[in-house]
Amino acid sequence: MTTINLNADMGESYGHFRMGNDKEMMKFIKSASIACGFHAGDPTIMGDTVRLAKESGVSVGAHPGFNDLWGFGRREIRMSARDIEYMIAYQIGALSAIATAAGTKVTHVKPHGALSNMAHDDAEYAGAIARAIKSVDRDMIFVAIACSEMVKAGRKEGLRVAEESFCDRTYDDSGKLTSRKYPDALISDPEHAVRQVISFINERALITRTGKKIPTQIHTFCTHGDEPTGPAVAGAVRAALEKNGVGVVPLPELTY
Amino acid sequence: MTTINLNADMGESYGHFRMGNDKEMMKFIKSASIACGFHAGDPTIMGDTVRLAKESGVSVGAHPGFNDLWGFGRREIRMSARDIEYMIAYQIGALSAIATAAGTKVTHVKPHGALSNMAHDDAEYAGAIARAIKSVDRDMIFVAIACSEMVKAGRKEGLRVAEESFCDRTYDDSGKLTSRKYPDALISDPEHAVRQVISFINERALITRTGKKIPTQIHTFCTHGDEPTGPAVAGAVRAALEKNGVGVVPLPELTY
Amino acid sequence: MTTINLNADMGESYGHFRMGNDKEMMKFIKSASIACGFHAGDPTIMGDTVRLAKESGVSVGAHPGFNDLWGFGRREIRMSARDIEYMIAYQIGALSAIATAAGTKVTHVKPHGALSNMAHDDAEYAGAIARAIKSVDRDMIFVAIACSEMVKAGRKEGLRVAEESFCDRTYDDSGKLTSRKYPDALISDPEHAVRQVISFINERALITRTGKKIPTQIHTFCTHGDEPTGPAVAGAVRAALEKNGVGVVPLPELTY
Amino acid sequence: MTTINLNADMGESYGHFRMGNDKEMMKFIKSASIACGFHAGDPTIMGDTVRLAKESGVSVGAHPGFNDLWGFGRREIRMSARDIEYMIAYQIGALSAIATAAGTKVTHVKPHGALSNMAHDDAEYAGAIARAIKSVDRDMIFVAIACSEMVKAGRKEGLRVAEESFCDRTYDDSGKLTSRKYPDALISDPEHAVRQVISFINERALITRTGKKIPTQIHTFCTHGDEPTGPAVAGAVRAALEKNGVGVVPLPELTY
Repeated sequence: MTTINLNADMGESYGHFRMGNDKEMMKFIKSASIACGFHAGDPTIMGDTVRLAKESGVSVGAHPGFNDLWGFGRREIRMSARDIEYMIAYQIGALSAIATAAGTKVTHVKPHGALSNMAHDDAEYAGAIARAIKSVDRDMIFVAIACSEMVKAGRKEGLRVAEESFCDRTYDDSGKLTSRKYPDALISDPEHAVRQVISFINERALITRTGKKIPTQIHTFCTHGDEPTGPAVAGAVRAALEKNGVGVVPLPELTY
Repeated sequence: MTTINLNADMGESYGHFRMGNDKEMMKFIKSASIACGFHAGDPTIMGDTVRLAKESGVSVGAHPGFNDLWGFGRREIRMSARDIEYMIAYQIGALSAIATAAGTKVTHVKPHGALSNMAHDDAEYAGAIARAIKSVDRDMIFVAIACSEMVKAGRKEGLRVAEESFCDRTYDDSGKLTSRKYPDALISDPEHAVRQVISFINERALITRTGKKIPTQIHTFCTHGDEPTGPAVAGAVRAALEKNGVGVVPLPELTY
Repeated sequence: MTTINLNADMGESYGHFRMGNDKEMMKFIKSASIACGFHAGDPTIMGDTVRLAKESGVSVGAHPGFNDLWGFGRREIRMSARDIEYMIAYQIGALSAIATAAGTKVTHVKPHGALSNMAHDDAEYAGAIARAIKSVDRDMIFVAIACSEMVKAGRKEGLRVAEESFCDRTYDDSGKLTSRKYPDALISDPEHAVRQVISFINERALITRTGKKIPTQIHTFCTHGDEPTGPAVAGAVRAALEKNGVGVVPLPELTY
Repeated sequence: MTTINLNADMGESYGHFRMGNDKEMMKFIKSASIACGFHAGDPTIMGDTVRLAKESGVSVGAHPGFNDLWGFGRREIRMSARDIEYMIAYQIGALSAIATAAGTKVTHVKPHGALSNMAHDDAEYAGAIARAIKSVDRDMIFVAIACSEMVKAGRKEGLRVAEESFCDRTYDDSGKLTSRKYPDALISDPEHAVRQVISFINERALITRTGKKIPTQIHTFCTHGDEPTGPAVAGAVRAALEKNGVGVVPLPELTY
């Protein structure tokens, strides 16, 4: 049976500030990427989110980002590779301790926002992230944007790499997400999202907004809970995958 | 042979801001309590400090504090026990990952500043700290101010507790550090520090500024590298202990 | 004609995190107390909120709080009076510049959350706040919880003091807000809020949950937009006041 | 008489962290650019620094930077022009209120670190800074790196612009500071600094490390107190200027 993973970014509230719709999304996904206190999340939110994932049969990953709460980790920051490496290790460790306290463990790492975008093309950033993961726990799965420098860096370091695509975002012909400046950047129609996911799996490729195919095997599809249509999209994709005989499993149960 | 530990707070620089005299102090101590990014320290400083400790044969501990860089963790903050518990777990984990990356591990936890002062008397704070340590790793040693609520809370949770006294601070008759308002609060004369340490060990008691004895067994003495006289005090105490046949060892080598 | 002010705390979003319901609340109030970036708010949110207030005919005030975004300024922090004084001046100034850029000005200052609660009883905190306001602009109105040390401190410094009560919170017999531990702490029924406001004005007193009267003249009533019932309460109170012939005006138009 | 200004960056300590040598530098300069709490500085440090400047007959300016204490404002952050504009206004206002409390006022604005470096070439950043200054107080002087986009943007907005060069840094042929990667980037010899300053004034040009002349009139020379040789360089330049009949005056006393 073909297997695939569905993941979502979780635990992006902060103190009294609420963000996302974790409880609803947790019903449809199989892996949660949890903010670690730098771009969002605080220790208590992290604890609550880890427990919710555990109860939901959802595997737990770290979602480290830039130290930029104001910008929600979406602003590019120029850092040294050395600082990035320690910053990632720090965040993985923080979540790992909280996962241990909840009786579970961190099994993947997925960079957030501008850090991920910069590391898509920047081999130095990508390498720093891969080395950080390896230095903390070489068994952790590196969830990396499909066809990015992160994929190369992770494999070079001998890590298991899960190539990630999106249920709810379109691609341009460079293989990157369509800029949010364009009206067709976001997919909010559940049926459209289903067609994209099924076609990417069947074609073993990213298919861009112009129809171009960029061959690669996708391991995990991300859905976003901060969009109002997030749960509807996630639920439709999950149902469609199972109807099509695709097993939706936590990241550690995939083969790499 | 009697054994004892010497520890110091380390890694309290932050970004471009320098604090303390870690390289010099590392020569004299056997355990380092390393700031975890909340009251001081950043991921890179933490990495450098862990490596320096490892090279120096010094055991590594987490020194978690309030999330208050401006106040250097020395301002009392009223938090819920639940938030404290997660906040401590977070910081222990962050340092643990960085220690793992450096090929070593965190073997003790010592609360910092106002968090430690509040938990001296507040059983709720003390219990939250003890539970956090236990939830992350029940083998970690809890370094707690001698005769405090933290000692009780740690033992209640079944942790190994190292009772801590100071080389360079005097005590008032309540068993707490003399307030810095008084001129005799700090001990900057190395010979005075030596006399205090030797007498506390021999008498198995804290001896206050009025001569009162408060019986307890001290496992570790703290010295402060941010005082200009820090290295001289630490060096004199270390030499005097060894001359008196007391073994100065890392915290994991003590018996509890 | 009797005049009174209605105020609400505003601009408590932060970056991508949304809080409150400013647009809706702005229709009913006459003065906005705007977060200044320490417990909530960021420069851009501050700018947007000041402009919204100006367009709505609502006077602008600074709502300074502790430097504690995680705790939303609701955690007590022990600071020196000197640090508090500068911290308040800083926040007033930050908002003032943004108000100037928007073609308006800051005319009142109202301390937030735990800072306000601590200064209710602590003459040192209250004095530091009053001195900070006076040092920046002695024409600014100090909005202080009715019957608090802040009222005394403000008058001692020669400031105009607006005594504040709440539409949506009950009082205990000490004259302080009923603790949120009790089910009757919050008033979410608009008719109940109306009765409270009208009776406080008519009786020239706070009336506690047991019916005790604590005489004082209230200048301004606060309503909270972060409660889902906030706009309904604010709208009902505004309408009732006008129906009863009470003029609802911005703070600078009151007499003190 | 030819007049010129000497300025230094000041107030870059933070809480318990010390940075720079403000008391010593204040003897030699005539204008201080004071950190505003984002890359360094806190409200109390700002207050102390403003008072020291006032006592020293030194004019006060705001030195706003990115919200990045960890990176000391030296890391490039990609922000929207709108966010930059409000961020600058916020920081100018914060310092202005503290200056008012100290009985003085802010008369110039000089961007810090990576913000200044990015705005050197980026017209959008430069324009946002200029608009922010104008929106808060059009009489404030904009201290901008000589020959940068900031100079153009400031003049376009009708601001007085002080073109700034450095006593203690060399220039490459593009008119920018020599990268710190090169051994001749820093000038630590006071006599060398004096020669550079005098030649730039006499030639009315920047003179690069290869001898190329880039014509411009320098209004102010910056010296750095965080270098150990800072006070010696500043003292030698001040003495040489006065010996050469150049008047060293605060920024508001120059003609633009």
